[in-house]
Amino acid sequence: MYTDATAAEIDAVVKKSWEAFHQYRKFPLKRRADFMRAIAVEMESLGDELLKIVSSETNLPLLRLQNERARTIFQLNSYADACERGEWMEIRIDTEIPDRNPPKPDLRKMMVPLGPVVVFGASNFPFAYSTAGGDTACAFAAGCPVIVKAHPAHAETSEQVAGAILKAAKKMNMPEGIFAHIHGAGFEVGRSLVTHPLTKAVGFTGSFSGGKALFDLSSQRREPIPVFAEMSSVNPVFLLPEKLKQSPEEIARLYGGSITLGVGQFCTNPGLIFGIDSENLDQFISILGTEIKKTIPGTMLHPGIAKAYIDKRKTAISQESVETIAVSEVAPKENQAIATIASASGQAFLNNPVLHQEIFGPYSLVIRCRDMNEMISVAKHIEGQLTSTLMATETDMRNNEAFVEEVKNICGRFILNGVPTGVEVCLSMQHGGPFPATTDSRFTSVGADGIKRFARPLCFQNWTNALLPDELKNENPLALWRTVNDRLTKDAVF
Amino acid sequence: MYTDATAAEIDAVVKKSWEAFHQYRKFPLKRRADFMRAIAVEMESLGDELLKIVSSETNLPLLRLQNERARTIFQLNSYADACERGEWMEIRIDTEIPDRNPPKPDLRKMMVPLGPVVVFGASNFPFAYSTAGGDTACAFAAGCPVIVKAHPAHAETSEQVAGAILKAAKKMNMPEGIFAHIHGAGFEVGRSLVTHPLTKAVGFTGSFSGGKALFDLSSQRREPIPVFAEMSSVNPVFLLPEKLKQSPEEIARLYGGSITLGVGQFCTNPGLIFGIDSENLDQFISILGTEIKKTIPGTMLHPGIAKAYIDKRKTAISQESVETIAVSEVAPKENQAIATIASASGQAFLNNPVLHQEIFGPYSLVIRCRDMNEMISVAKHIEGQLTSTLMATETDMRNNEAFVEEVKNICGRFILNGVPTGVEVCLSMQHGGPFPATTDSRFTSVGADGIKRFARPLCFQNWTNALLPDELKNENPLALWRTVNDRLTKDAVF
Repeated sequence: MYTDATAAEIDAVVKKSWEAFHQYRKFPLKRRADFMRAIAVEMESLGDELLKIVSSETNLPLLRLQNERARTIFQLNSYADACERGEWMEIRIDTEIPDRNPPKPDLRKMMVPLGPVVVFGASNFPFAYSTAGGDTACAFAAGCPVIVKAHPAHAETSEQVAGAILKAAKKMNMPEGIFAHIHGAGFEVGRSLVTHPLTKAVGFTGSFSGGKALFDLSSQRREPIPVFAEMSSVNPVFLLPEKLKQSPEEIARLYGGSITLGVGQFCTNPGLIFGIDSENLDQFISILGTEIKKTIPGTMLHPGIAKAYIDKRKTAISQESVETIAVSEVAPKENQAIATIASASGQAFLNNPVLHQEIFGPYSLVIRCRDMNEMISVAKHIEGQLTSTLMATETDMRNNEAFVEEVKNICGRFILNGVPTGVEVCLSMQHGGPFPATTDSRFTSVGADGIKRFARPLCFQNWTNALLPDELKNENPLALWRTVNDRLTKDAVF
Repeated sequence: MYTDATAAEIDAVVKKSWEAFHQYRKFPLKRRADFMRAIAVEMESLGDELLKIVSSETNLPLLRLQNERARTIFQLNSYADACERGEWMEIRIDTEIPDRNPPKPDLRKMMVPLGPVVVFGASNFPFAYSTAGGDTACAFAAGCPVIVKAHPAHAETSEQVAGAILKAAKKMNMPEGIFAHIHGAGFEVGRSLVTHPLTKAVGFTGSFSGGKALFDLSSQRREPIPVFAEMSSVNPVFLLPEKLKQSPEEIARLYGGSITLGVGQFCTNPGLIFGIDSENLDQFISILGTEIKKTIPGTMLHPGIAKAYIDKRKTAISQESVETIAVSEVAPKENQAIATIASASGQAFLNNPVLHQEIFGPYSLVIRCRDMNEMISVAKHIEGQLTSTLMATETDMRNNEAFVEEVKNICGRFILNGVPTGVEVCLSMQHGGPFPATTDSRFTSVGADGIKRFARPLCFQNWTNALLPDELKNENPLALWRTVNDRLTKDAVF
């Protein structure tokens, strides 16, 4: 339906984005924020027509899409507020000491934007992590223009949302080139965008192979640029003995829901569940199996994802010593996923890296560990994750401090007695984690701290007050929090 | 004198560092800070014997070394204070909303350390950017153990300072492996350290070729890790017309001093000076030439640096259309540098990338631009820099806003009417900048914000108050600044 952008088109788009950057980066925080709020308004006004389009492209149910749209609008508005509040700017002021030997100059630091940001739409979040999603909102807040590469699986949705952004840009008198929308089903478009010398950062949510390829392209550039790719996570869940004994049914029901939510198509889907071999674990597995059997197969986002699920699931359950516990009893139609749980021993897990891999869809593997020592061993062998979850009583936690510390070290979000699915949009959220969950564990793609992916500190030395940006002026006209001579304050500088 | 560490030795050291990491990261902020303060005390108590050693290894004068030692001690103490003050932890708390649909869980985020950090000693700062220098201090504050690769040009100094760190570690009951010291004159030692799977971050200050090689090694690891390399900068200075007209003599004297300070061996040495062709510029060049001629040649840090200076200077001044203006009149002895200034036209600069390169030593090239438009063109062609400097009146600034914006975009520190040499240690300092000045413009290697290079956010979801780390507990026992429900406060959470 849409043809891939050519190299010449991409070059023109990035150059225009670079020009817009030099305008947009000078705009005050309020003007950036108002632009983001205008995008939210335009998105809302696309109404339910938009939902029909995206539903037909992604097979996602209307209720889910309504919620995701609301979340996307909330993101735009809440990151706009954070942009204006300006804490992400990390303003530091150290006033001069002229009579020191040598004299100490006046130094003032704030964040400035990196430049044009390329955002890759995600297949599983056509709104929230795509065209006007979190990466785009963070980049606009930071002061960067955005170039979105539409996800080919929801290109029309992306086109519609891009239209809303462009409409808002026009209304708010943004420079031409503040936003561009590019189609590309092949890898070549992504490559051209990421390797263009005027592209200064990249945001990506998707597969490990896709994210890692972009990271490699960036590292090999003459001028490497930051790539934040959120890629791959199996989100391990650990069932500790006392908790498992207390409530095996409740946990099984909770996880039956979490594993199959949204046909398992979340980056925080719990793909590995560890417990210690026992009657309680048997009971848990049995009830979880009953839940899984009841699951009605759901249609996946697109045929490519359905095929990958079918293939990877088949590989996983055919591994030596893996036993299939339960599958959904209703036969799947084309492009639908059979919810599945299987089990294997801790030793099998330690010996077979295939069992560590993410299977994107409603699949989870229960690992029967011999004892807590084996559970510590498996925790040490797990790669970086977006989330880890403990189902544990306070006694479980106190008795296994070394284990808890191991699990803490592998994840970006550490959940106690809950499920990893469901990612709140708020400042305290960390949606990130050690590699291969992301390419840089020091950043997040959810919450307004995600703005910092696209900004860098700039220090002004010995500038006169009149010439300084408003953020750094003595009188603090924007009433921002600033660290002045090591003290956090909103006071003016005297 | 010292032999290079073998691969087996390095493996053992990094493994021990990894073990220490699991102890040290649990230590409270105060205990980390006290350890850093103890290092400062031990360094001080090495006394003037240490200065003799380092002076013989680096040819640096005693006064400079006294100052650098004082600065290093100040860094350790001031980053220790910042570590305890905890603002770098960026604590965010969003309390639960149980009656929302779906219920909002309690979420609390803080910084946790990355793991063992490898620090490469710098040749030009045997104290402040070496063994117990800024990178080491930042890593300890973040909760990371450190492995220092000594710079071969001051290996004995490094050995002495390492002894002080180990003594402090013992006194403060730090885990074995909290610090290790490795010798290596060849590249192989660095490679083994950076590619070891348990190394989790790297700090480097030095040449572009050295830093970029480490960055590439990291990018090619199975698990890429953050490398902060501070590499290469020519620190352009722009003389704006009105200012130049007002005080050509004063500026020339100021820059005569800055170019030759410390035999030009600073990463912030001003290597390029741009002005608009005019009588005033001629006058400036003439006085600067007089200053340069008076310079007594100084012995460089080591023969390798002296040779590189001689070679690069020769290449630079032999470029077509480059004219040598002045050299120091006293003949240099072995390993001494002849201070030099040369000039070329704006067009020659635009056409010849050789003229953009850093020449580490007392060398600066004055570029005669035709007019302000050409000055804007050259600013657009300059690569990323640690610093840019404007010599300008308020009128100059107001008349050339587009130019000022261009210059702002290429540097980490933007100086008005001053010199780039002299890097204050304070929170508002940015010692970093766009590539190739560093490998990641979003971080700094000077000031306590440098701690953030070695830490990542971790979010705790639904933890009970008793189990949370002290930093995140309701009652705020450490009295830290925290953002609670989007509001910055030191209050307890109710």
